[in-house]
Amino acid sequence: MAKIAVLIEDMFEDSEYGKPAEAFEKAGHELVHISVKKEPVKGLHTGKKVKIEKLISEVQANEFDALFIPGGYSPDRLRVDDEVVSFVREFSKSGKPLFFICHGAQLLITADALRGRKVTGYKSIVQDIKNAGAQYLNQEVVEDNNFISSRYPDDIPAFITACLNMLKKYK
Amino acid sequence: MAKIAVLIEDMFEDSEYGKPAEAFEKAGHELVHISVKKEPVKGLHTGKKVKIEKLISEVQANEFDALFIPGGYSPDRLRVDDEVVSFVREFSKSGKPLFFICHGAQLLITADALRGRKVTGYKSIVQDIKNAGAQYLNQEVVEDNNFISSRYPDDIPAFITACLNMLKKYK
Repeated sequence: MAKIAVLIEDMFEDSEYGKPAEAFEKAGHELVHISVKKEPVKGLHTGKKVKIEKLISEVQANEFDALFIPGGYSPDRLRVDDEVVSFVREFSKSGKPLFFICHGAQLLITADALRGRKVTGYKSIVQDIKNAGAQYLNQEVVEDNNFISSRYPDDIPAFITACLNMLKKYK
Repeated sequence: MAKIAVLIEDMFEDSEYGKPAEAFEKAGHELVHISVKKEPVKGLHTGKKVKIEKLISEVQANEFDALFIPGGYSPDRLRVDDEVVSFVREFSKSGKPLFFICHGAQLLITADALRGRKVTGYKSIVQDIKNAGAQYLNQEVVEDNNFISSRYPDDIPAFITACLNMLKKYK
């Protein structure tokens, strides 16, 4: 099964993390929660805590089969960290599955990983996505090679279906 | 004295709003707090509430002498509203003073108002600022004609000094 890196910080959007994470684990995949500090990170709406297994300084992109970036304000907090940005850049070059929803694309913008790609994301960052050289599509799920992106919580079921489908090759 | 529009929503950075607002009012300027809803908006760290005087649908850019956009996650929340974005675009074209700090530049990006301008902002949005066609400068205050921008709370004293200086012509 796939070993999935989850880049997460405080103020993550609870459902955009929780529902895909639950579905990935239920399908037998392993999640490794990675952040810039070892303390548990807190959700934006519920304050629910998620345990961090690894600091970004302790991991390499090539240790993982896939990368999942939940939304909320977690991506904004993570993109100020140069090691996180390098990790995302390395991962995007690897061609391995990369899943992001809502504000998740912000991390790929800072990593300059969206140029020429088809993606979607939350309305507030549409102009940032376009300015980063990507083609923005207003769809519940956008698949472009190894990238799967969605816009907001309502898209979660379609997002999960697409991600699990891409992870089938790891079964 | 100047009539200053303040575009503000929930999750504004408390000090980036509070300290400049206090200084502007102490200098005799009038603040009009504008948002997308009439309920008081809440600060990110302290939960302090700020009263909203006008809905964005009730105002025109030409009613004001200056525009102030505090940081935090308030700009991200405001930039999904098309009327707010139009207001910022109109204002930026007017040549009247436009002050923004931290994430404030996000609203100008969505309004496509940064092309060819020198600005600064919070580290998380540096790539967004560059991709929007602006020249990013890592300074406590950047002045470019009618634009005054700063990076984060530590820059507030220099930000206030520059803003008050630009507002002197309204005395």
